[in-house]
Amino acid sequence: MPRTLKIAAAQMGPIHLTSKREDTIQRMLTLLTSASKLGAQLVLFPETALTTFFPRHLITSPEELESYFDSASTITTAPNTKPLFDEAQKLGIDISVGFAERDTDGQGYNTCVYYSAKKAKVIAKYRKVHLPGTKEPFENPDAVNQLEKRYFTPGNLGFQAFRAPDLVPGAAKKGAEVKAGTGDPILGMMICNDRRWAEGWRCYGLQGVEIVLCGYNTAGFAPDLWGTRKPMTPEEAEIDAVFHHKLVMQGNSYMNSCFSVSAAKAGMEDGKYDLIGGSCITSPEGHVLAEAKTKDDEIVFAEIDLEDCRQGKEKTFDFVRHRRIDQYGPITTQTGVVEPEYL
Amino acid sequence: MPRTLKIAAAQMGPIHLTSKREDTIQRMLTLLTSASKLGAQLVLFPETALTTFFPRHLITSPEELESYFDSASTITTAPNTKPLFDEAQKLGIDISVGFAERDTDGQGYNTCVYYSAKKAKVIAKYRKVHLPGTKEPFENPDAVNQLEKRYFTPGNLGFQAFRAPDLVPGAAKKGAEVKAGTGDPILGMMICNDRRWAEGWRCYGLQGVEIVLCGYNTAGFAPDLWGTRKPMTPEEAEIDAVFHHKLVMQGNSYMNSCFSVSAAKAGMEDGKYDLIGGSCITSPEGHVLAEAKTKDDEIVFAEIDLEDCRQGKEKTFDFVRHRRIDQYGPITTQTGVVEPEYL
Repeated sequence: MPRTLKIAAAQMGPIHLTSKREDTIQRMLTLLTSASKLGAQLVLFPETALTTFFPRHLITSPEELESYFDSASTITTAPNTKPLFDEAQKLGIDISVGFAERDTDGQGYNTCVYYSAKKAKVIAKYRKVHLPGTKEPFENPDAVNQLEKRYFTPGNLGFQAFRAPDLVPGAAKKGAEVKAGTGDPILGMMICNDRRWAEGWRCYGLQGVEIVLCGYNTAGFAPDLWGTRKPMTPEEAEIDAVFHHKLVMQGNSYMNSCFSVSAAKAGMEDGKYDLIGGSCITSPEGHVLAEAKTKDDEIVFAEIDLEDCRQGKEKTFDFVRHRRIDQYGPITTQTGVVEPEYL
Repeated sequence: MPRTLKIAAAQMGPIHLTSKREDTIQRMLTLLTSASKLGAQLVLFPETALTTFFPRHLITSPEELESYFDSASTITTAPNTKPLFDEAQKLGIDISVGFAERDTDGQGYNTCVYYSAKKAKVIAKYRKVHLPGTKEPFENPDAVNQLEKRYFTPGNLGFQAFRAPDLVPGAAKKGAEVKAGTGDPILGMMICNDRRWAEGWRCYGLQGVEIVLCGYNTAGFAPDLWGTRKPMTPEEAEIDAVFHHKLVMQGNSYMNSCFSVSAAKAGMEDGKYDLIGGSCITSPEGHVLAEAKTKDDEIVFAEIDLEDCRQGKEKTFDFVRHRRIDQYGPITTQTGVVEPEYL
């Protein structure tokens, strides 16, 4: 029996240091309206969707830094974010939104939440596990900093999949038959760099995930501080960055028999920091079903059938029949590289 | 400093039930000669390179079944395989060869060995971990069986990377500076279906692997016994199978910053069992550097620079800085799917 669902990525064009929150929220409302006209039931917004990608800047003023952070506990009620969730609820669209989270204990996280329109509340939260970049700024003044390790603590909530209530009309509920292929959709969230790490995907795959959501801010070009890269023009570098983005979305969707939705913050922030576009929706067979055509605000939309996950989950990637966890030890016992001896 | 290396996949066309071993070996010698003329220093042969892909048949005669198996301990000395290794040694080419292994304890494994021409011996052995298919034949008489789980025991040697002695002239040796980027090449072997499982790749990545070798026999089309697949013509199914093959070779090479070489047994075995081609060499950035043009015996060749692995290994995929093993628990503690509760 088909379990069709209309899903969308809400790609966002640049947000600048000088952008006002109310303007950003207004753009997000406009995107929601566009998605709603297409019949979208689920819309993914990018990583740090509410602000510019501030980790590229060394911010020394505590007040300025705090202006980029929001609280997860008040995200649906604070005046400068409430209109987004209210509109989602009104339109009956579930949304996932990324933002810099300041926890009550003072820690910063690169976070996204999943808001259920039917439940009128946040039902899941994810904190980015794979923080790229460095704690200290580069000495090279030409370098574009990536200070996520400075501003954020690595995510501590694991990769917790969850069911999205009532997204598929008539789907079986808890207590009834809730195996994959019959129940409410099983979703998982990751953020940006996480998509390059097969471990997160597999943790979701091991929960029968049917759709992985991934917002991102990915630089199109940065100087080669390592001196290890072949010379590239900025244009070539951007093409390669989009290629890598799609490659990992396609490959990991295939290897975990799930759909994926990815939403970029794209374009030139602050007039000089280029972010790739390439927001896309991929199938459990690893194909790109829909893809952004611009680097601006744009809805990427597809109607999918969750039933398409079954072929992979029950055959090639039937984990219980084929996985051999006794052979995978180093993945969870060893963080870095240990090179082999000569045999 | 460049660490260039000339590597090749020796794709093989079909081998039939009626094919004679001496003819198969002769074809492999011809492929070796071709590779040698290109200057190849390392040549990969397919999975079960010495026989037809016999696990598609239900073989009830013990004598017949044994005729498809070889012993790893005598592979370089038995009269029906020795000429291949002798020629490799004479030409100074390292080779990796897949075959059905009968162990001294009676167990069968889907195995490959790595023969070092300089050492004039097998220096590494790998046994396929991810055996596809079933133990019992399908009841549907139209089905093409895949009885690897019947004939083979899952590999019990893990994913053990190794250094290939003297492949790169002047490379540092054990006891000297042997970090990735300076020593003899670090290699890892996997077989066919293993390439679809990110776990094996990561186990190799955690040993700093620079080249992953993967021989395969992959069906272009099989009836949809599960009833879960969209209708496809055999031609469409084969295109999709090649797409999946390249997707996982490219994606996992990128995510582990390594080259890969994959070698198919290709074409129509026994006049009716179609195997895909698509043997290829991929780069640490996930690009296809060279690719088979036929489904017959064919050398796929590339000159690579192992230095190209450094950018990924030292930056985006610097495991020790970015991996978070405390968040990966389920990968090694949970074999099959455990679906989430409602949050």
